Amino acid sequence: MKFCTYCGEKVSVGIPENDNRERFICISCETIHYQNPNIVAGVLPIYKNTEGEDKVLLCKRAIEPRYGYWTLPAGFMENGESVEEAALRESVEEANLTLDNMQLYTIMSLVNINQVYMMFKADITDKDFSPGIESLETELFSEDEIPWDELAFPIMTKTLQHYFEDRKSQVYPVHNFVHQVQFSKK
Amino acid sequence: MKFCTYCGEKVSVGIPENDNRERFICISCETIHYQNPNIVAGVLPIYKNTEGEDKVLLCKRAIEPRYGYWTLPAGFMENGESVEEAALRESVEEANLTLDNMQLYTIMSLVNINQVYMMFKADITDKDFSPGIESLETELFSEDEIPWDELAFPIMTKTLQHYFEDRKSQVYPVHNFVHQVQFSKK
Repeated sequence: MKFCTYCGEKVSVGIPENDNRERFICISCETIHYQNPNIVAGVLPIYKNTEGEDKVLLCKRAIEPRYGYWTLPAGFMENGESVEEAALRESVEEANLTLDNMQLYTIMSLVNINQVYMMFKADITDKDFSPGIESLETELFSEDEIPWDELAFPIMTKTLQHYFEDRKSQVYPVHNFVHQVQFSKK
Repeated sequence: MKFCTYCGEKVSVGIPENDNRERFICISCETIHYQNPNIVAGVLPIYKNTEGEDKVLLCKRAIEPRYGYWTLPAGFMENGESVEEAALRESVEEANLTLDNMQLYTIMSLVNINQVYMMFKADITDKDFSPGIESLETELFSEDEIPWDELAFPIMTKTLQHYFEDRKSQVYPVHNFVHQVQFSKK
């Protein structure tokens, strides 16, 4: 941040009165510009076939970062919607999914990139899904078929690992954990 | 938002390519400025006395809005911390609390003010708490003593209601719900 959103003058970095953190402060109108973490909302979509076998839907990414890798549908929560609405919207945008039984499942604080992921477990009620504009493919995978080495993000790996572990007992508590994003050298 | 944070020129409102929402876009450098909901993290601090009786800690607000009303400790999550760390920090800043057994408890999307509250149930392990700079008083209340008519925000009321209801069965699932903030006319 270099300029004030209210008056267009330069901002400086300083600690405001009654605060203990550095903020961007306008040198002219003195507006304090707070910057806070963003929420990424998504789904863990599960399809149960007539034999009772579970499969998880993954999307192959058509966008960077991690183009061509597999992920669970997720994206930035928008103003004016609930976390659950955001997760549902992303499931439609990326995979044209029809879901039911939305249940909050994993909450992950990505502390070094200022994001909080909130993933909902959900049942796919209609197999008529298809790739949205941000996906190359949408496909169902059983546990044995999950392309573990081709998953886009470690937090998606963790969400899937929790699911297959919890599935043994059929009890799905909310998992809240912290994740440090590792950046690979190009 | 009137001016671009990167170049200081004016922004206009428009829908970017491959998007379906209005964003602020710089008329000069064309940077798209996304605006997203903020997380408010807090705690529901519980003190269990030697007779096994539960009391909840509330803070009387020393700041606007709702100066003089009672609330649970909570505040905006900062960059660089986890949701749980944010809740713990607020519990210290507002009530100098020492807590244990943090457990995610209520998640509330305040859709019309673009905030998501995330409250953790926690045990007070040391009765040596005291008001922080944003509190006039800190006090323990049994269910009968809760000042229901003097609570600062409906979402705090709802969190307390869930707690006293769940306490009957001693089972505390995560509650995820949507709340529409009503603004009172002054």
